[in-house]
Amino acid sequence: MIDDPAEIERIEAEHKASLRPVARPNRRDFLRGAGLVTAASALAPLHPKLAAAGDNLPPNVPEWTKTLGAGVAENPYGMPSKYEKSVVRRNVEWLTVSTQSSVSFSPIHELDGIITPNGLCFERHHGGVPEVDPNEHRLIIHGMVDRPLIFTMEDLVRFPSVSRIHFLECPANGGMEWKGAQMDGAQFTHGMVHCCEWTGVPLSTLLQEAGVHKNATWLLAEGADAAAMTRSIPIEKALEDCIVCYSQNGERIRPEQGYPLRLMVPGWEGNVNVKWLRRLKLGDRPWQTREETSKYTDLMPDGMARQFTFVQEANSVITFPCPEKPLKDKGLYEVRGLAWSGRGRIKRVDVSFDGGDNWHTATLQEPVLSKALTRFRIPWTWNGGPAFLQARAIDESGYVQPTIAQLRKARGVNSIYHKNSVHTWRVNPDGTVNNVQIV
Amino acid sequence: MIDDPAEIERIEAEHKASLRPVARPNRRDFLRGAGLVTAASALAPLHPKLAAAGDNLPPNVPEWTKTLGAGVAENPYGMPSKYEKSVVRRNVEWLTVSTQSSVSFSPIHELDGIITPNGLCFERHHGGVPEVDPNEHRLIIHGMVDRPLIFTMEDLVRFPSVSRIHFLECPANGGMEWKGAQMDGAQFTHGMVHCCEWTGVPLSTLLQEAGVHKNATWLLAEGADAAAMTRSIPIEKALEDCIVCYSQNGERIRPEQGYPLRLMVPGWEGNVNVKWLRRLKLGDRPWQTREETSKYTDLMPDGMARQFTFVQEANSVITFPCPEKPLKDKGLYEVRGLAWSGRGRIKRVDVSFDGGDNWHTATLQEPVLSKALTRFRIPWTWNGGPAFLQARAIDESGYVQPTIAQLRKARGVNSIYHKNSVHTWRVNPDGTVNNVQIV
Repeated sequence: MIDDPAEIERIEAEHKASLRPVARPNRRDFLRGAGLVTAASALAPLHPKLAAAGDNLPPNVPEWTKTLGAGVAENPYGMPSKYEKSVVRRNVEWLTVSTQSSVSFSPIHELDGIITPNGLCFERHHGGVPEVDPNEHRLIIHGMVDRPLIFTMEDLVRFPSVSRIHFLECPANGGMEWKGAQMDGAQFTHGMVHCCEWTGVPLSTLLQEAGVHKNATWLLAEGADAAAMTRSIPIEKALEDCIVCYSQNGERIRPEQGYPLRLMVPGWEGNVNVKWLRRLKLGDRPWQTREETSKYTDLMPDGMARQFTFVQEANSVITFPCPEKPLKDKGLYEVRGLAWSGRGRIKRVDVSFDGGDNWHTATLQEPVLSKALTRFRIPWTWNGGPAFLQARAIDESGYVQPTIAQLRKARGVNSIYHKNSVHTWRVNPDGTVNNVQIV
Repeated sequence: MIDDPAEIERIEAEHKASLRPVARPNRRDFLRGAGLVTAASALAPLHPKLAAAGDNLPPNVPEWTKTLGAGVAENPYGMPSKYEKSVVRRNVEWLTVSTQSSVSFSPIHELDGIITPNGLCFERHHGGVPEVDPNEHRLIIHGMVDRPLIFTMEDLVRFPSVSRIHFLECPANGGMEWKGAQMDGAQFTHGMVHCCEWTGVPLSTLLQEAGVHKNATWLLAEGADAAAMTRSIPIEKALEDCIVCYSQNGERIRPEQGYPLRLMVPGWEGNVNVKWLRRLKLGDRPWQTREETSKYTDLMPDGMARQFTFVQEANSVITFPCPEKPLKDKGLYEVRGLAWSGRGRIKRVDVSFDGGDNWHTATLQEPVLSKALTRFRIPWTWNGGPAFLQARAIDESGYVQPTIAQLRKARGVNSIYHKNSVHTWRVNPDGTVNNVQIV
């Protein structure tokens, strides 16, 4: 700790005098990142304006280096820096009548990597967040089973467990744009998705305990919230990879994500991942609940509605640049984004800088996990002119994320759900970025 | 939403009447989990006391189902349930003179999977937590370089980035037990480790920008805290896999973890992962700073000290059962724990229930990542008698976690750091669990 005032003054003066134009990444940095360059001298930097600090200059000595900081356990459960207070979930007041049956969006433009911190996972409730006492909570399995069962939380935690990193997306993500509305930024166009490590009991284990009847083909999942949210799930999916979860990113699930128990249905629309799970009933047909008749269907141009469209097909979003994260000056940037598919692993992400005329393959951050967010990155030199940035995800099933024109041709414009078309950000000459549609 | 009082009363009465002995996992559940059973009837359950709920009985209708819950964005940055308020970092008052130069421990016995939520990552500070303004923060690279550089946070975020899931461990983890002290639970014996997804710029990229001199062999990393924490790092490691990080589990690094910038040195002892990173200086020898002379060395029996023992060798801990998580009754359990190695991937974890006489191979949760926590699980039938539970990690380099006897034979008992020996929990006939040493 430097505590001689004269020495501090000298260092600070020297530091201020030395501040020069800042360092910028150059093409070599990106190529090396992609394993394409081994010798440093292979390419000259595109941005030679490197900051030239005085040789052997120590850094500045700010106030916080001169005084003792906070002690350990002053925050037994830590929180972000006060300088990050704008990184929060946000709702849209005009979107819903009440906040209890509403949505808040994750600030995906502020996030890196693939894990969403629990405090920033988007919310979608139908009757508000219940304050469930885990000691009183029960899960019942009944209906077409040999042995109806009631479980306490303690019972469930004792069963063999698994952990999986999966995305979870509301099928209404982007749904406000079917007809052409333009939400103001990535948080609102694509912020109804998060990705966490989930731990719990395989649903197949619990169903086997109960002894599912051979002619049981559907499962009803019910939440303990005021909406008693209910969805029907085919038995094949229930046995395939569903998890009765009690843990999210290491700790017990957050209240707004279903504390103390949530059904994880990997890759399927968020609402079937029933929160505050209290009941699983086996039957031989879907229940046609309110949520799956009046709400989560897709109205087609001919007036018919698609029902039980569970899978969240491949989707992607560029999180930098985006309306909330404009560019500052011409030059080389790393364009970043997220891709995901309810059918498995992301195989490839293409990025266009000219509205879809030319496509370039992005780098995927390993490990690429099944039904998880996948971070993609690609270098791009902005020449200062207008540009139209797009990303297109392709999953391991071969599915290619459609254009909005393709999607509208197939599905019309009456839907709210499952709008997974290629999205466009327009970069303006002043560096600002707008949400636009290229049809 | 069920809101007819008579109906609710009827359901509740029915529910109470139906409560039976709870369901317990049986051997079949575990075998199926391990892919060893395909037919449900292959094995009879060991615990046939399954709860028999009345057929078609709905679950209870608790208070929280009868009233609307909290709306969205009432907590723009969410927090855990009030019922989880005991799941916090804890410090040990007698351990250090002040809380500014001290440690708090992660509640590893309460965690699942491998990701540690940011609010629960252990702390180790030398001068408290500085409140760094990211707009004022600078990183300087100087010394034996062609071009000394100063970076703002904005500069750094613009560079090509990578994301990696890595553990980070204080070398003093378990260090209070070298001479035989017995800390009271897993939080205090092994809670100085966490595992997060870190995002930032590869250090090699920044060093190449600065142009490292050919005869530069060491790097000094300095923090902006009141301790101006400094450590020397060999250039080979700096170029291999170090990351100048600004993000932790998706969001910007927490204040107590180095906000806004931390040097991630994967697999190496926590203190070289310098927090609040403000300076990197290249040189041709280590700096012999206070932390690497008076503190982070290992005193051997002959009076010599091992210095620069950077790697955190393979280690493991059983997190259930443990002193904080006793057993309730005889029967089948899933024993759970964490293993990790600073040399790469965990290859195998063996578990003993009889103090090391017999070993059984645990199941590792995929994906097993390099230099990351690895969750292991193994079924165990507790017969109600005393038992001695141990885990032994083996990494991909072939290194086998030593016994305490082996470690003391090689290193004596004068050390504080790098105690990674096999740990023993004694299960008592009443189900309580004690921390013991088997020598």
